[in-house]
Amino acid sequence: MEELKQRILKEGKVIIPEILKVDNFLNHQLDPALFQKIGAEFKKRFQDEKIDKILTIEASGIALALATAYNMDHIPVVFAKKGIHSNIGKDLYISKIHSYTKQEDYLAFVSKSYLHKGEKVLIIDDFLANGQAVLGLLDILKQAGCSCVGVGIAIEKGFQKGRSYIESKNCKVESLVIIDRFEGDKVILR
Amino acid sequence: MEELKQRILKEGKVIIPEILKVDNFLNHQLDPALFQKIGAEFKKRFQDEKIDKILTIEASGIALALATAYNMDHIPVVFAKKGIHSNIGKDLYISKIHSYTKQEDYLAFVSKSYLHKGEKVLIIDDFLANGQAVLGLLDILKQAGCSCVGVGIAIEKGFQKGRSYIESKNCKVESLVIIDRFEGDKVILR
Repeated sequence: MEELKQRILKEGKVIIPEILKVDNFLNHQLDPALFQKIGAEFKKRFQDEKIDKILTIEASGIALALATAYNMDHIPVVFAKKGIHSNIGKDLYISKIHSYTKQEDYLAFVSKSYLHKGEKVLIIDDFLANGQAVLGLLDILKQAGCSCVGVGIAIEKGFQKGRSYIESKNCKVESLVIIDRFEGDKVILR
Repeated sequence: MEELKQRILKEGKVIIPEILKVDNFLNHQLDPALFQKIGAEFKKRFQDEKIDKILTIEASGIALALATAYNMDHIPVVFAKKGIHSNIGKDLYISKIHSYTKQEDYLAFVSKSYLHKGEKVLIIDDFLANGQAVLGLLDILKQAGCSCVGVGIAIEKGFQKGRSYIESKNCKVESLVIIDRFEGDKVILR
């Protein structure tokens, strides 16, 4: 997606080694006009699929998932929550996810009320690197008896293993921008 | 807002004592058609204000803020993040917030890059009860030299003190639905 590429090249900041910050428009400050275009692009990429629901994970995925649903006849969005507290109820699908950024494991969960056997689900997230968050969401879909029609990613780190892990589960990955590599403080896109 | 009232009465679940769960459409599963209407309603409530930016806090506020920005010429959304980790940078406005739900304090922060002196900011959030999250966001706006043009809330617990705390700081509160009280497992709306 050309516009997203240009925004990354113009406004993205590289923290050595190998972290791209896009806080300016994607995951701290959000540019709604860009989100509208991203939503339309995901719609295009998955236009041949029948999709019942969009699944993402808090927090950065939520806005992308909503923007995508706005383009898909307002199908429901479900976001997996992180951590367990007193107010969440009991009937949950739970998966343990490792965060390489934070160097820790956390639990992600979805209430059993919001995923039903046989539903076709599109997963949306902002970044794909090692794929741990998406693998956790796929695990939750498996527990629920749902199928994954695809994974839509805004920015993929193409030199990491997330895509191959997901594709090995027969799930299609569509990334709007793929980072080929970093050269010092420069990001090289494919 | 009549449609939101009806959804709460039909689909909301009360956990005794005094917790209303609206996971079915507002903060776990999201109904994008409803979000579109909520965004339009916030636009209407604040139509006389000049607004530069919308501020909210992760995670449940993000989708409401984006839906509102879609109705306001795509002004930027900024969401305060929770917790501190290695990847967040240094130049931050930070406020300590107490969560009555989780019975703990946490830090919320916004990068100094995304709030500038003199900006007029609308705060959006899903729930208002004791007002601690909004007070934290107001504290961040004060640190940044921004002014608050108003606070838009989807569901207010009218019997708690959040509104009076916020109004005592000369900030207008617009809630789409106000809970008057709970009677056992029933929610009574104003």
